[in-house]
Amino acid sequence: MLAEIIAVGSELLTPFRQDTNSLFATEQFNSLGVTVVFKTIVGDRRPHLVQAVSLALSRVDIVCVMGGLGPTEDDITREAVAEALGVRLRRNGDLLAALYKRFAERRASMPGNNSKQADMIDGAEILPNANGTAPGQWLDTVVGEHRKLVILLPGPPMELKAMFTAECLPRLRAALPPRHIARRVLKMAMLPESEVDARLAPIYTRFNDVETTILAHAGEVQLHMQCTKAILEVAQGRVNELASRVEEEMEDAIFSSNGESLEQIVLYYLEIRGATVAVAESCTGGLLAQRMTSISGSSRSFLGGAVVYTDDLKVQFADVPEDLIEDKGAVSREVAEALAHGIRRRAQSTIGVGITGIAGPTGGSEAKPVGLVYIALDDGKEINVCERKFRGDRERVRWLASQQALDMIRRKFM
Amino acid sequence: MLAEIIAVGSELLTPFRQDTNSLFATEQFNSLGVTVVFKTIVGDRRPHLVQAVSLALSRVDIVCVMGGLGPTEDDITREAVAEALGVRLRRNGDLLAALYKRFAERRASMPGNNSKQADMIDGAEILPNANGTAPGQWLDTVVGEHRKLVILLPGPPMELKAMFTAECLPRLRAALPPRHIARRVLKMAMLPESEVDARLAPIYTRFNDVETTILAHAGEVQLHMQCTKAILEVAQGRVNELASRVEEEMEDAIFSSNGESLEQIVLYYLEIRGATVAVAESCTGGLLAQRMTSISGSSRSFLGGAVVYTDDLKVQFADVPEDLIEDKGAVSREVAEALAHGIRRRAQSTIGVGITGIAGPTGGSEAKPVGLVYIALDDGKEINVCERKFRGDRERVRWLASQQALDMIRRKFM
Repeated sequence: MLAEIIAVGSELLTPFRQDTNSLFATEQFNSLGVTVVFKTIVGDRRPHLVQAVSLALSRVDIVCVMGGLGPTEDDITREAVAEALGVRLRRNGDLLAALYKRFAERRASMPGNNSKQADMIDGAEILPNANGTAPGQWLDTVVGEHRKLVILLPGPPMELKAMFTAECLPRLRAALPPRHIARRVLKMAMLPESEVDARLAPIYTRFNDVETTILAHAGEVQLHMQCTKAILEVAQGRVNELASRVEEEMEDAIFSSNGESLEQIVLYYLEIRGATVAVAESCTGGLLAQRMTSISGSSRSFLGGAVVYTDDLKVQFADVPEDLIEDKGAVSREVAEALAHGIRRRAQSTIGVGITGIAGPTGGSEAKPVGLVYIALDDGKEINVCERKFRGDRERVRWLASQQALDMIRRKFM
Repeated sequence: MLAEIIAVGSELLTPFRQDTNSLFATEQFNSLGVTVVFKTIVGDRRPHLVQAVSLALSRVDIVCVMGGLGPTEDDITREAVAEALGVRLRRNGDLLAALYKRFAERRASMPGNNSKQADMIDGAEILPNANGTAPGQWLDTVVGEHRKLVILLPGPPMELKAMFTAECLPRLRAALPPRHIARRVLKMAMLPESEVDARLAPIYTRFNDVETTILAHAGEVQLHMQCTKAILEVAQGRVNELASRVEEEMEDAIFSSNGESLEQIVLYYLEIRGATVAVAESCTGGLLAQRMTSISGSSRSFLGGAVVYTDDLKVQFADVPEDLIEDKGAVSREVAEALAHGIRRRAQSTIGVGITGIAGPTGGSEAKPVGLVYIALDDGKEINVCERKFRGDRERVRWLASQQALDMIRRKFM
């Protein structure tokens, strides 16, 4: 089954706004075995939208139109889809009453324009909107001799996602031939994509019934696996078999096999080991602390830390000896160790992490180039230090340094 | 003049990848007075792309196709555009020689497939690629009785941006009627979009020759202004006149009138005042420090800070009296003040910032709900505290708290 997504809104044709709903919808469609073959973005111009919908009806089975269901003049999706289908709009009495009621409850009179939100395409079902006023529409119809599903969804992501999940998924499952799709994602940290692919290609190419996709972000490589079979257990079995082979090859480089983020995994391990962490950051400037505390519940394992941008604060908050900074320089293996050691002692945590480096773009030298970062981990028995030379801009160097630190904590407690 | 952007690549139809090139291209087109009226995203299927290009040729003046210029079987843009135009592809000898030379320099033999990168659409000019192997193409032609510009660009953003800037902009300027467009952006922090619009609509609606767009992100509202005239100075004059009226109305709520971020502005003011800052963060967990240190050169004004997630570290790093935490609770006006005071004294900075609050989603109570945040600023003479009840999820509450803190620092030193 093929789908086309049409995103409606002149703001989506400016440099400022981008359609992101389609990523969510694509994932949902794919999980049901539906392939998205076109995405079209059109402004709030009725002839343009009529043309886009007509074309979509001619080339795919499912047409999903997002946006343009509001009450203003610019909201032309209902009219345009009806015109493309050659059917009428009918004002729905129940919807209209509900609109009046909503305004009455707020002791406001409803502007005349708003009543258009009660217009239904002939033959369409109402998709209730749990998070807003604009109802969606679901039409299961025949165009020419072909069955077509036409779905109208509101543009605001919160409304769209809730409506898709609650209203569209069950209808799509009922309307589509049953498909049994098993999916899994394995995530790896701090390995180059080329290395992961070189090691895994000989494995996954032998599973030609499992669709694999390798995605790389800064410091993270993801292997997405998907398999479709007549029987779900068989599909799941194939995905799991491939995942096992991949795990054998990559061993502890894999940090997550169920979609968790690196931050979540690190906090999970810390918690089950009853361990706590404190961090002293120089070049990452609070990024590591910020990433760990972005997870709800992190306060059970993350005690806190120091952002020690100046030499003075390295001494003040992490007891780094002043002469060590003078002798070795603020960016050095020894200062990273002292930061880890000092912050651990100060916070009385199970482990201490120290990071110092040169994020750039300025401040580098031949001996200590931009991208040089030392990351130290002190567990009270030993101090491990990792020296890395990261390439990229300031943002990337800082991100990779925090990623490396998280991966070191993970390996310590896994 | 109307343009359509066609992004080519099956990966752009997965849940994992999104076309972002079109935002850049749209901005460039708009700056020349060209409006983008459609964006179409198609996979690597030749019939689909032929159909999309044919349709675009029928409805716009400029067709900009991005991606699909590589050497593989999947790269079908050249063939598809030629087919849609009904013209031939010709292998270009110079391009072919350059490809062979490139491989020879690496002492590699060129795979046969690669020679297709030397195929030019009949009548098209080569657009040299400064950052990759795939040349772009520029075709100024007539379809039916209408002049059409057809532009083929490579997909990788680094290649596309450089090629657009160096090769397309001069050609577009020469091909299009001269337009003089003045643009400006004013940014405001910590005001609701509805309030900004209510106060500004009476002003900007009187400037109906200036196109205004209000964009809102978390804690930031931007007013984009654009004016097109026969003479640039006249356009600039109108934009500046509107900007002045807006500045009169919004006064110091406007933090930037030249596109700078709030972080940049704060560091700019700190530097020209010769002031330094240190921060003690609880609920923001390092986010404020991370945002300030994300700017290169921040070390001149940002000394450092403490992430004081536990009560113990609030005492340890910011000298918050233990009994104050017991009496008032860790989330209180008094503890925020003590954090600001303590970190300032410890770091010997011009100002100290203290943040404590409940980021959620758990940990709230009736008296102290999720979203309650205290932000304190101590300049040695007085301590200002701001109490806010932010709405939204953990990420948003933390972001808004850091945004509020930055805005308080800005107002102190502006």
